[in-house]
Amino acid sequence: MADKARIAILGASGYTGAELVRLIATHPGMRITALTADRRAGESMGAVFPHLRHLDLPTLCRIEDVNPDDVDLYFCALPHATSQEVISALPRDRKIVDLSADFRLRDPQVYAEWYGRAHSALDLQEEAVYGLTEFYRDEIRGARLVAGTGCNAATGNYAVLPLLAAGAIDPDEIIIDLKTGVSGAGRAPKEGTLFAEVSEGFHAYNIARHRHIAEFEQEFSKVAGRPVTPTFVPHLLPQNRGILATVYVKGEPAAIHAALAARYQDEPFMVVLPFGEAPATRHVRGSNFCHIGVVADRRPGRAMVFATLDNLTKGSSGQAIHNANLMLGLPETTGLDLAPMFP
Amino acid sequence: MADKARIAILGASGYTGAELVRLIATHPGMRITALTADRRAGESMGAVFPHLRHLDLPTLCRIEDVNPDDVDLYFCALPHATSQEVISALPRDRKIVDLSADFRLRDPQVYAEWYGRAHSALDLQEEAVYGLTEFYRDEIRGARLVAGTGCNAATGNYAVLPLLAAGAIDPDEIIIDLKTGVSGAGRAPKEGTLFAEVSEGFHAYNIARHRHIAEFEQEFSKVAGRPVTPTFVPHLLPQNRGILATVYVKGEPAAIHAALAARYQDEPFMVVLPFGEAPATRHVRGSNFCHIGVVADRRPGRAMVFATLDNLTKGSSGQAIHNANLMLGLPETTGLDLAPMFP
Amino acid sequence: MADKARIAILGASGYTGAELVRLIATHPGMRITALTADRRAGESMGAVFPHLRHLDLPTLCRIEDVNPDDVDLYFCALPHATSQEVISALPRDRKIVDLSADFRLRDPQVYAEWYGRAHSALDLQEEAVYGLTEFYRDEIRGARLVAGTGCNAATGNYAVLPLLAAGAIDPDEIIIDLKTGVSGAGRAPKEGTLFAEVSEGFHAYNIARHRHIAEFEQEFSKVAGRPVTPTFVPHLLPQNRGILATVYVKGEPAAIHAALAARYQDEPFMVVLPFGEAPATRHVRGSNFCHIGVVADRRPGRAMVFATLDNLTKGSSGQAIHNANLMLGLPETTGLDLAPMFP
Amino acid sequence: MADKARIAILGASGYTGAELVRLIATHPGMRITALTADRRAGESMGAVFPHLRHLDLPTLCRIEDVNPDDVDLYFCALPHATSQEVISALPRDRKIVDLSADFRLRDPQVYAEWYGRAHSALDLQEEAVYGLTEFYRDEIRGARLVAGTGCNAATGNYAVLPLLAAGAIDPDEIIIDLKTGVSGAGRAPKEGTLFAEVSEGFHAYNIARHRHIAEFEQEFSKVAGRPVTPTFVPHLLPQNRGILATVYVKGEPAAIHAALAARYQDEPFMVVLPFGEAPATRHVRGSNFCHIGVVADRRPGRAMVFATLDNLTKGSSGQAIHNANLMLGLPETTGLDLAPMFP
Repeated sequence: MADKARIAILGASGYTGAELVRLIATHPGMRITALTADRRAGESMGAVFPHLRHLDLPTLCRIEDVNPDDVDLYFCALPHATSQEVISALPRDRKIVDLSADFRLRDPQVYAEWYGRAHSALDLQEEAVYGLTEFYRDEIRGARLVAGTGCNAATGNYAVLPLLAAGAIDPDEIIIDLKTGVSGAGRAPKEGTLFAEVSEGFHAYNIARHRHIAEFEQEFSKVAGRPVTPTFVPHLLPQNRGILATVYVKGEPAAIHAALAARYQDEPFMVVLPFGEAPATRHVRGSNFCHIGVVADRRPGRAMVFATLDNLTKGSSGQAIHNANLMLGLPETTGLDLAPMFP
Repeated sequence: MADKARIAILGASGYTGAELVRLIATHPGMRITALTADRRAGESMGAVFPHLRHLDLPTLCRIEDVNPDDVDLYFCALPHATSQEVISALPRDRKIVDLSADFRLRDPQVYAEWYGRAHSALDLQEEAVYGLTEFYRDEIRGARLVAGTGCNAATGNYAVLPLLAAGAIDPDEIIIDLKTGVSGAGRAPKEGTLFAEVSEGFHAYNIARHRHIAEFEQEFSKVAGRPVTPTFVPHLLPQNRGILATVYVKGEPAAIHAALAARYQDEPFMVVLPFGEAPATRHVRGSNFCHIGVVADRRPGRAMVFATLDNLTKGSSGQAIHNANLMLGLPETTGLDLAPMFP
Repeated sequence: MADKARIAILGASGYTGAELVRLIATHPGMRITALTADRRAGESMGAVFPHLRHLDLPTLCRIEDVNPDDVDLYFCALPHATSQEVISALPRDRKIVDLSADFRLRDPQVYAEWYGRAHSALDLQEEAVYGLTEFYRDEIRGARLVAGTGCNAATGNYAVLPLLAAGAIDPDEIIIDLKTGVSGAGRAPKEGTLFAEVSEGFHAYNIARHRHIAEFEQEFSKVAGRPVTPTFVPHLLPQNRGILATVYVKGEPAAIHAALAARYQDEPFMVVLPFGEAPATRHVRGSNFCHIGVVADRRPGRAMVFATLDNLTKGSSGQAIHNANLMLGLPETTGLDLAPMFP
Repeated sequence: MADKARIAILGASGYTGAELVRLIATHPGMRITALTADRRAGESMGAVFPHLRHLDLPTLCRIEDVNPDDVDLYFCALPHATSQEVISALPRDRKIVDLSADFRLRDPQVYAEWYGRAHSALDLQEEAVYGLTEFYRDEIRGARLVAGTGCNAATGNYAVLPLLAAGAIDPDEIIIDLKTGVSGAGRAPKEGTLFAEVSEGFHAYNIARHRHIAEFEQEFSKVAGRPVTPTFVPHLLPQNRGILATVYVKGEPAAIHAALAARYQDEPFMVVLPFGEAPATRHVRGSNFCHIGVVADRRPGRAMVFATLDNLTKGSSGQAIHNANLMLGLPETTGLDLAPMFP
């Protein structure tokens, strides 16, 4: 026990916080020394999330009551904007994986445009590494502050980045039709995420103005070496977990499949299906895997790329642990080999 | 059109309000002249409930902006406690069907005990008729104020009242294990009714202290002619609509079935299944029907009675219209012959 | 009663058959005189579909036991291929609305290509009118045999046809990303439509080779006056009812919205939302309405068109009744004014 | 690796087979050397269950192609009746955990009565130990053949057995109202388990004649030392995983809670909630935990006991691994410490 990394989770009363605890429960290299939830300080984690009641966990406390001397690495699962304030106040010699949107966008102007306010911690923004593990592995290994990606952004990036890097598609003709489960919307009560409003129905939301577009533009443009803007339409699925991105591209289908297969062949969590097969969200549920498939369109020179992952795991908390493993010098798959749960 | 009853719905932004509008949309004897929703006054009903956008409806207004001269009958779909205040202020010569719990309990002491406050409109309470149509039809026909029943209460009452009346069961051994869909919890955002908290799971709630127990005790005791208290445990189903009560009783199964079949044989919305068959919530979905089945236990002298209805229709808004039809002198099934929607 | 049209439903044990019965139950101009289901002949409809048990319906019989003298109009809800055989054997002076795929494709070569067999009733194929009511109203009015459209095909056609007709979009750049509920797959047991295989998950199927592509090509090309092929990817939603098509097009968004609004302004079941709003499947559930929305992309000259309908109602059985109303000389909206059921 | 127990799973194409593979994937003391599925022999497990495609697993084969020399322990996840034939043919010196119903009932007469056929392997039946781990731990440790319990039976037994043992309840007044998810019905296509037949609805099935009653009677009577028969009504929930039993008993509520708390205090997977709290299926999803709660009824001398577990894990495959750990001399919780997955 003594040499396990000591972990604090700031914002443990939300779904990503609970998912971190679930994954760390069987992680051999981490132990939780602090859990915070300002509004529920003093309660047990089992009271907030009864599925975790069998675990021996610290009582929820306020952020200011966490002793940094007991922490090797912070997971920060706080709301956007709050995160930058809280992280600014943490000791500068502690490792941090932030799961909010606060440090994802390198350009402060772009941040201000999409989030409607100036960034209040520009030095931290500059220091932060974008947490798309497979594309920033070396930087993450040496990083102190890693910014977890948007869950939708991760899904689309996994499908598209290798294709732009390989020059396999037309950068001006990328359409990302994405469908996501409800848990990504968080645990705060809202009319729009009530059971009766979500079940037995489907709709698009934040059409052409979802904030994850900024992450697509940042990463796509960086890889392509010139500005790239996709069309992006997210939809809400009547299910808890899972994102599926259907990406419409122009290029040779076989070359597209080859580019993805080559790029991900040594990646432990990326599974490229045989050409012509498409993945399903239910087959990655609860796991850190991302399944990718390519199918040729009937029309020559066009293809569909499908990418799926669990928004709470590979899209958020599993990704965060993956990055933390790298930052802590642990084998990177440690604690993340849970098989998907189906049905 | 001129001779259609003019209807005002107070509290039209909740699920029972929307269900009233859905049913009245094809009701040949009613037309809506006012819809209120204080917090959304000035908006169209289509903005609040887009499934109703094809209808030509009055704009939502505040209660005080409804002109009583344009109203023959009020449906009051307001929260408990609010309802008694609002109805107290309505003209005393208007017909009212209240869908709240405010006027269901005849004994003010019992009301105070279960609802935690003194009743503020005792004269109206005295005037109100309990809206269990099949058991209070004559009183309802002549009533000015009808108190819609609890949706769970209706379900259990339909299963049990004829058995107590016929002396077919032991009044001291009634166990009601009830399961209800989520829409009964209303549209106000709460953590407990979020999609991610309800889907793919099941649990009991308000065990042995649900307020509808008071309605059971009131009606059971009245019919039995002596105090009767059931055991009552409600559970939350991961579905929108539908209540199923599984009632465990002691008595001769065949006699139990016969008592129910006899009692309901002329009732337009009560369907007693052949002996040995059990109903399903999905087969009454969206309709005003109640299906009842009786199955013998393996143990002699014991039986299970199953009753199912749609909490928003037969359990609330459909019941309300049924009662309103009687109050308005319309054929009582008018507008309520919609077949259930399956799947 | 005497002057109601006498209706036979061939294939009444499937979901579209049950949906026809549900709708006819409150249709003032139709009455059911025969219901067939070969494997369940002799049973009551209530045994096959308990939600219909309150109705007074004919016992299920075999097709050969239906007396044509008791039938004014047949709804044929049989499987593909079976339908053409059965209809060939019906008297040639009876009106028929076929809900199968058998008579949708005008070109026998195209039929053979997509359905893997030669058509066996070419004269009937020639006679049949494509049942997309809003686009073939006059032909349908005079038709004897109407071929109901594919439910996916209807959804995409509603979104696209007015745009091709108006020249508002580039015909070579149409991408239809469609999501559909499970009931469209029918009631025959298959592993892929089991609850445990469908719930809490999402995936694409029949990618770029779904048979409804043939209907798109037929109708798109006819309206455009030259061959038009869309990209079409259907996905399976974990819900019973509802189709949403997200159509990516190139053209001026405002002109696209205007073209749709103009085309559908007098249509009783087509609702075009204000520019910038998108529809939800749950808001048309169980109804004959189709909601259409247009949202501009961030990229100039591109837009998303969203169309939603209930696959069993507007996409199949409601459409069939709409067409039958026209064929029988009834007001076309008769029996189809049911408001959507939400939640 | 060399000293891991070598595992064969017979019948790997069903849900319990897949669940065994999921759990063994992170089990440090077991490795899979054979997977059988007669109808899918020659296929990869990833083709049958794509969520397992990242694992390095043996190709599916026929039972006769499994070499017993490569197997230390068999998990037999075959259909009832098939199981006894297959196990009869296995070498008598191999350990076996059977997940079917074939060896659960000690009395061959009772077996014949409930399963409609004579038992064909009476010697094995005599040898078999009932796999309710917490009650047969010592026998299981020394057993060669363990009969996994019914998933419903386990749930009810956990709630009731300690109460009968402690004399805390009236043995003649036990009512088990049980609700179970769909995955327990298996992967074979049936109309009754289609998504459209299960979702958005609820009903009772096999009322008072479910085969698990035989297991209740066997275990209840053994512990009570005299014949005990409960009333048992199972219901089908619109969810994949999870069983909740609501057990109505007569006895002192506090004593009932105390008896359960005492009995399970040292059990690694049994969690007794504080008096007055009730569990939820979603809080044990995917885990080997069983949560139990006791709530007093309003009526003196009556209580409700709630027990919940995941039918595929604690109710079946997790239980099987728990028992196998004991049979193999491994620490009994090995590989079973996965936290529940919520949401």
